[in-house]
Amino acid sequence: MTSRIPREARPTLALVGATGAVGSVMLRVLSHRADVWGEIRLVASPRSAGRTLLVRGEDTVVQPLSEEVFDGVDVALFDVPGDVAAQWAPVAADRGAVVVDNSAAFRADPDVPLVVPQVNPAQIRNRPRGIIASPTCATLTMIDALGALHHGWQLTELVAASYQAASGAGREGVERLHDELEAVAGRRDLGHQAGDVRAALSDTLGESLPFAAPLALNVVPWVGDSAGDGWTSEELGVRHEARKILGAPDLRVSATCVRVPVVTAHSVSVHATFAQPITVAEARQALVEAPSVVVLDDPEQREFPTPADIVGSDPTFVGRMRQAVDFPNTIEMFICADNLRRGAALNSVEIAELVVADLVPVLTAR
Amino acid sequence: MTSRIPREARPTLALVGATGAVGSVMLRVLSHRADVWGEIRLVASPRSAGRTLLVRGEDTVVQPLSEEVFDGVDVALFDVPGDVAAQWAPVAADRGAVVVDNSAAFRADPDVPLVVPQVNPAQIRNRPRGIIASPTCATLTMIDALGALHHGWQLTELVAASYQAASGAGREGVERLHDELEAVAGRRDLGHQAGDVRAALSDTLGESLPFAAPLALNVVPWVGDSAGDGWTSEELGVRHEARKILGAPDLRVSATCVRVPVVTAHSVSVHATFAQPITVAEARQALVEAPSVVVLDDPEQREFPTPADIVGSDPTFVGRMRQAVDFPNTIEMFICADNLRRGAALNSVEIAELVVADLVPVLTAR
Repeated sequence: MTSRIPREARPTLALVGATGAVGSVMLRVLSHRADVWGEIRLVASPRSAGRTLLVRGEDTVVQPLSEEVFDGVDVALFDVPGDVAAQWAPVAADRGAVVVDNSAAFRADPDVPLVVPQVNPAQIRNRPRGIIASPTCATLTMIDALGALHHGWQLTELVAASYQAASGAGREGVERLHDELEAVAGRRDLGHQAGDVRAALSDTLGESLPFAAPLALNVVPWVGDSAGDGWTSEELGVRHEARKILGAPDLRVSATCVRVPVVTAHSVSVHATFAQPITVAEARQALVEAPSVVVLDDPEQREFPTPADIVGSDPTFVGRMRQAVDFPNTIEMFICADNLRRGAALNSVEIAELVVADLVPVLTAR
Repeated sequence: MTSRIPREARPTLALVGATGAVGSVMLRVLSHRADVWGEIRLVASPRSAGRTLLVRGEDTVVQPLSEEVFDGVDVALFDVPGDVAAQWAPVAADRGAVVVDNSAAFRADPDVPLVVPQVNPAQIRNRPRGIIASPTCATLTMIDALGALHHGWQLTELVAASYQAASGAGREGVERLHDELEAVAGRRDLGHQAGDVRAALSDTLGESLPFAAPLALNVVPWVGDSAGDGWTSEELGVRHEARKILGAPDLRVSATCVRVPVVTAHSVSVHATFAQPITVAEARQALVEAPSVVVLDDPEQREFPTPADIVGSDPTFVGRMRQAVDFPNTIEMFICADNLRRGAALNSVEIAELVVADLVPVLTAR
């Protein structure tokens, strides 16, 4: 791709939210991938602007978010809170940039495609608002694998329970988890009486923000915001996004999203039912052939994905593949992926690269 | 019950495995419940015999496991490894004791009832071998709630994903988790590169036994032994046990069992489908009325069960109740229970108390 764009015509990329947890991973990803980009412009809130970050080996000063910062930008990657994206993504699009947004602001917008390059790449062209959305990390953890299987056997039902890492709540989440772990380490008296962990933390750390309960020595069945009828935005997001990405409006989905004391890498226990008969051997072969999926599935040798063993890697990892004993055409799986990388930064960067590939005729003509 | 048995006729209880993680909880439970028992005889392996433990405020010397130790015993609670139970439970039964076994050795035996007092109490009488089995902790976490709903609406499908605590692997599991947490506390560099936690632990602690992978900063999708076709004994155990306890041989079950870095209290994400139409309001009312179930379900107020907030308590706690959007007659729930107490010790003790209630005519006549 690079060789087809003259160096002087290479596109300009803006990275909005460059100083956040996902933004930092985007910088690392961009620094290690083919040199598609001309200028890479770093943008953040006025509070974080002025800092210097390393991109492709070069010190780059972070600029404050403004209308003018998007002048001359071909593609703008946004990783900022939803309200900031809702305000500023249209501004960037108006100035001519194709926006790839990683927030929830546009995922449900029928005029904004929700894209996973390994699953529905052609949808990048269907962007009347000039905005392309990237899915939430819980969806991205499993969608490459589900997409590969849906292609062959047509997914009809999905029951998923997640094990989501602290970094899904950003830097604040990671710091809080480490703070909590330090507070409970060596306290072998904890974990035996109701509320003892909560009491130990509130003595030293105060409230359990950004999580809805203590996360150290605990799991917390609440990720995202309240979405009505007892559901969270994350759980209904998985349902809506899986349907939209797979182009399967009748797909039946139930998800339960749970935070666990892991730094980075989400896991999902998946119960997937298909329209066509499917065996574990067939599913495994399809996943082995899927470009961004790695099968780690030899439990007799203790080979299965765990967050700690796959964090920092690009692919989605699938293991614990089993034929459901009582449910026809149904496969059970345990899927892990780095939520900052596969679950956020990498998907956005790959969308941006697809957009550039599509823009080659425009870029080479200018 | 107590008042109907003359003090001098009160039954003798043997507690086999008194020094283990569950055994210790049994001692605490026995010390806090109605004084049903005459002598409480403590038994353990020759290695642990000779120690003195406190029962009902009295120092009691632990006796070594032998045939003679069961002489005069009315009820013997076993919490020992399956191979030890397989060898010694029949010995105790031959000597006239009713055995309540907490291992996997007899759960699948058609001549051994598998009993949860709140669900199928009458089955205690159906014990041709003189042995009654107690279910595995993953089953016990959710079966009181499922039993209450099955009673009204007939459970037909169960998809479950577990979040199981370290103490499910005994004292060794708890010590290992604490050791691992101490080794990673303060290491804010960890959790970012594949295998970094594993490397940090192997430097200081060696192999990840008793877990199949590091548990600190991780989740491990492997609980129990290999049971063929990719399944674990724990996962197929949940299937078999739910069917046997509910008396529902056609119940469709798929379970995925995952270990999480929690000291004590298991959680299960449950997707439960019923033959009859059921609403969340109806299900909640049935659970509120179930004797051993507590509903904690006001997520707007951050009220839902978490392991750290319910550990050390007797009931099963249910929250996150939702009507499945796409699946008819289906309720989603997040269920937590103390795996040593509700999930092991308490169920065995309650079975033993049922047996005693049934033996009252025999006891009072002697």
